[in-house]
Amino acid sequence: MAKIVLYMWMSLDGFITGPDDGPDRGLGIGGERLHRSLFPDDGGPRTIRPVDEVGATVMADVMATGAVLTGRRTFDHGGRWNGDHHDGVPIFVLTRSVPEEPTFGHARYVTDVPEAAARARQAAGDRDVLLHGAEAARALLHAGELDEMSLQIIPVLLGQGRRLFDDLPPQHVELELVRALEGPEMLHTRYRVRSTDELRNRA
Amino acid sequence: MAKIVLYMWMSLDGFITGPDDGPDRGLGIGGERLHRSLFPDDGGPRTIRPVDEVGATVMADVMATGAVLTGRRTFDHGGRWNGDHHDGVPIFVLTRSVPEEPTFGHARYVTDVPEAAARARQAAGDRDVLLHGAEAARALLHAGELDEMSLQIIPVLLGQGRRLFDDLPPQHVELELVRALEGPEMLHTRYRVRSTDELRNRA
Repeated sequence: MAKIVLYMWMSLDGFITGPDDGPDRGLGIGGERLHRSLFPDDGGPRTIRPVDEVGATVMADVMATGAVLTGRRTFDHGGRWNGDHHDGVPIFVLTRSVPEEPTFGHARYVTDVPEAAARARQAAGDRDVLLHGAEAARALLHAGELDEMSLQIIPVLLGQGRRLFDDLPPQHVELELVRALEGPEMLHTRYRVRSTDELRNRA
Repeated sequence: MAKIVLYMWMSLDGFITGPDDGPDRGLGIGGERLHRSLFPDDGGPRTIRPVDEVGATVMADVMATGAVLTGRRTFDHGGRWNGDHHDGVPIFVLTRSVPEEPTFGHARYVTDVPEAAARARQAAGDRDVLLHGAEAARALLHAGELDEMSLQIIPVLLGQGRRLFDDLPPQHVELELVRALEGPEMLHTRYRVRSTDELRNRA
């Protein structure tokens, strides 16, 4: 079964955006520091040219995924990737209410978390599902549907902004570090969620 | 000059204690998970027997420091290390007001951050200064006196508790990853604070 893998770029102090993020400033004030190593030519993931080997490894992982699952905020703030994240793979956008305008490119809206997870896994086939967005990550984690996390830890303290891990319940979620790659622009870490089976059984 | 190096054990979601930490429960509810790999026999740092090579490397670093600088909370919640953190090196305890009871073992209270930093550096000689405590770390960082951070990232999400990095100003603090060691119980990271000179000049 396809694994659902969260991909996020995070400061050492846990932020994925600077303060005051919004539709016109998806990364918040100063948050572009976190994506400095990515250098997309036109804002699209396809055109990213990593500046070092660690970044290249992560981007190769990203491009090898067979479906995208994202929160609505990340989707909207990221300009909806012009409807195509990479290679035309299906994009499932988690949202509380489906907007009136029609779906966009390869994107479709889904309101139910387990349904979104199931459809994304099915679409990805034997490849991984790329998951984006803090709120979506929490929802998937809560539903026992988050399998792994690819976290790029950027060597900076942002001080303020939006945290990846916030408002979680006090239950411990045990992880296993399955890969760590050290580069000048980031420390790549990949964790397996060890408690997912337990969470899934509870859900 | 002796470097001031923060040593902390932190969950991947940034917590150094569980919720509701206090004098009788220094690590908060469930926070002992973060120190699981340390196994002190009697609560003293001297008796810690690390369970793997990464932990052994970190503890060797700790034991090689020539002075301890700590926040009052960490000192009190840690039982004041019975007055001797390791090898009788001097312990400087940052506090807003010096308590009436006399100092304890090798510990002395200091209220001024630059003075505490200067005295700890002098005492450590050609060795490092070990810094403990989130509030002390923020104070030293703000004063431009924090040189490096040895952060042990524990593979668990605690969900709630006391964060290491909280209430920081929005100024970015640039870091350089100088060492990363991957072990089953922790990912050891050591970062150099690149902005310290700049901060020090501003202070």
